[in-house]
Amino acid sequence: MATINPERLLRRLRVLAEIGRAPDGRLVRLAASYADKLGRDALVAWLQNAGLDIKIDRIGNIFGIWAPKGVDERSPVMIGSHIDTVIDAGALDGCYGVLGALEVVETLREAGFVPRRPIALAAFTNEEGVRYAPDMMGSLVYAGGLDVDEALAKVGVDGTVLGEELARIGYAGSTEPGFLVPSAYVELHIEQGPILEHEGYVIGAVDNLQGISWQKVTLDGVANHAGTTPMSMRRDACYAAALTIAFINDLARNSDSSSVATVGSMRIEPNAINVIPSRAVFTVDLRDPDERRLRMMEDALAAYLRGLPMKTGARVSVERLARFEPVRFDERIVRMVEQAAARRRLPCRRMTSGAGHDAQMIARMAPSAMIFTPSIAGVSHNPEEATAEVDLVAGANVLLDVVCDLASDAEARP
Amino acid sequence: MATINPERLLRRLRVLAEIGRAPDGRLVRLAASYADKLGRDALVAWLQNAGLDIKIDRIGNIFGIWAPKGVDERSPVMIGSHIDTVIDAGALDGCYGVLGALEVVETLREAGFVPRRPIALAAFTNEEGVRYAPDMMGSLVYAGGLDVDEALAKVGVDGTVLGEELARIGYAGSTEPGFLVPSAYVELHIEQGPILEHEGYVIGAVDNLQGISWQKVTLDGVANHAGTTPMSMRRDACYAAALTIAFINDLARNSDSSSVATVGSMRIEPNAINVIPSRAVFTVDLRDPDERRLRMMEDALAAYLRGLPMKTGARVSVERLARFEPVRFDERIVRMVEQAAARRRLPCRRMTSGAGHDAQMIARMAPSAMIFTPSIAGVSHNPEEATAEVDLVAGANVLLDVVCDLASDAEARP
Repeated sequence: MATINPERLLRRLRVLAEIGRAPDGRLVRLAASYADKLGRDALVAWLQNAGLDIKIDRIGNIFGIWAPKGVDERSPVMIGSHIDTVIDAGALDGCYGVLGALEVVETLREAGFVPRRPIALAAFTNEEGVRYAPDMMGSLVYAGGLDVDEALAKVGVDGTVLGEELARIGYAGSTEPGFLVPSAYVELHIEQGPILEHEGYVIGAVDNLQGISWQKVTLDGVANHAGTTPMSMRRDACYAAALTIAFINDLARNSDSSSVATVGSMRIEPNAINVIPSRAVFTVDLRDPDERRLRMMEDALAAYLRGLPMKTGARVSVERLARFEPVRFDERIVRMVEQAAARRRLPCRRMTSGAGHDAQMIARMAPSAMIFTPSIAGVSHNPEEATAEVDLVAGANVLLDVVCDLASDAEARP
Repeated sequence: MATINPERLLRRLRVLAEIGRAPDGRLVRLAASYADKLGRDALVAWLQNAGLDIKIDRIGNIFGIWAPKGVDERSPVMIGSHIDTVIDAGALDGCYGVLGALEVVETLREAGFVPRRPIALAAFTNEEGVRYAPDMMGSLVYAGGLDVDEALAKVGVDGTVLGEELARIGYAGSTEPGFLVPSAYVELHIEQGPILEHEGYVIGAVDNLQGISWQKVTLDGVANHAGTTPMSMRRDACYAAALTIAFINDLARNSDSSSVATVGSMRIEPNAINVIPSRAVFTVDLRDPDERRLRMMEDALAAYLRGLPMKTGARVSVERLARFEPVRFDERIVRMVEQAAARRRLPCRRMTSGAGHDAQMIARMAPSAMIFTPSIAGVSHNPEEATAEVDLVAGANVLLDVVCDLASDAEARP
């Protein structure tokens, strides 16, 4: 049983985490920024060093391809993730999947493994969506879910145009996105949640990804004097919001499914201590791996909001911000992950991804799955983001085994 | 029965409402500002025109005194309010009480009335408290509740010092605050609430003023990914806040007393759609005319907050921002108001003042009461602030009658 080189993987993770570190100590490598260029340059150099053939597509996705002579270049096993980050990021989100994939490829080459399919490493552009919306953009474009020219024309929060920025940093490639249709896609990633650590598992075999429903709720009441307006004559937008927020949280808390509900953003107007609020605006983030249950939560919220005017006098308006159906990953690959973990005696459980990942986009075009490793205290998108080194190594070894299995199987899959 | 001159009162209200109107059309006459100086100058000119003796005390309170020969200058009947405003104010809050008092004095003089006590008109400095805290400052200092030098040293939200600003606008007087101890104080004011209009009354005989309790509640949870953190492992500060806001509102709504509870100001951190809030900060404004019931509400909130960590995992801290006990006004003067309204066949009810007023401060040193007139739609602190002209006239006539009664009674009161 081959084993990845732990020191090489961990060293590269440390190196990449210093690229784009701002003078104030924060790691910020936003998509298509100069910091991103430096990260990309380092990655490309490593890929070339490993003997891989580099391709950049029009949306800036980077591919490092290993296609031994005599092997059909099409239908590679694709592995990867992204290297752009949020603001004040940790070292692992995305980077672990890309550098883990690189480590797997190098280990296989050193072991003299001869794949019966090509192996393609992918680093997708703008997974985080911090600078340009939507997130998971590179993989979405690659899978045909968003037109490449439309994506390149996106204007960022800083007023820049993505296509111009990609050209500026030298990563506006000429290859058409989707030029390789993978036979399988596997993404190694930190969990970004507390479940594996909490339950004592080292490997998550991710068999599905939650559906996401984002809504913005605006409640309009009437501003009035907090001292002189009797309770019975109030139309208090903050009170109406509080009832709704308690309701949707309690609904998810009392459900025996894995539904989650979050009100993460809220503001009230006029926001003065002695004035009854005339307006409350808040977001609702609902997630469930089951589309039927996700829709039930949306319906329950809608029904509650319909009753709110009668109960509180507040007028209700709702704007849908985003909606993704749940994704089911490929059962065959998920089982390969479980079997690889079992062979290495790593405690493994099946699980749902609560976050969005490039894998959910590539799942539109190819059988896909993900491998999770534990996040200490469940923390992510934060400098405190961490995973035990032994777990990082374990995850990469499981990826190694799964890639071995997939690349040994030359039977064509759609 | 003498009657005030409606045109004169309404004209002066219109004139004063144009002094301090900003280029953008908003009326802003903050305490001790240049706009306030212009308003004060107009008022002083009117008081002098009416033959009154002007006194300015050290905190800038303006007095116009009518003391006929042979009448003891001490123990006047005092009437008035304030002329400073909030930002984007209406025309009536405070100004109606001052100009109504002026109208009463002129009417009495024109009618040849000879008071057996002096009549002192008062315009107190900085009732609104927008620029310098605390509010009701001029009357608080006058009644001995705040040292005058301490008040003059207050730094405003714009970094200015009140004492310097009063000197700059020419209203840093030399008379010691409290130099006249009134035998009675009566303040005419718009209700700033909806009760009189809603119930069809023209006059409110204000027999008490609510106690006020202001608290700032900070709830600390843990920020985490909204998709990957199971409901059972969350410490969501916004959820904890929503439960508390619903609780305190429901407590006041379900009480059969006149308790009111308002959460008017709130913010959450980090305030992102897909991050569980780590912190929620909100204010609680509790009011009740009965000190025992006000304390019961405070106790109920405190008990609820004690249970919150167990229920939600949030840590709780509470800061007391302000606390005023309820004020009971003088029964004899309240009855005079009721009798005056009855004689003029004006529908009148006893009521509580939900807002704070200078009368609550002067009540510390003299028998006091207030006369309310209806606020259309209960609106105040707003350009839409309005009272029917006929009601403005009615209120001033009731003040006229009450002042007549009080100034005819030469029996010393403490």
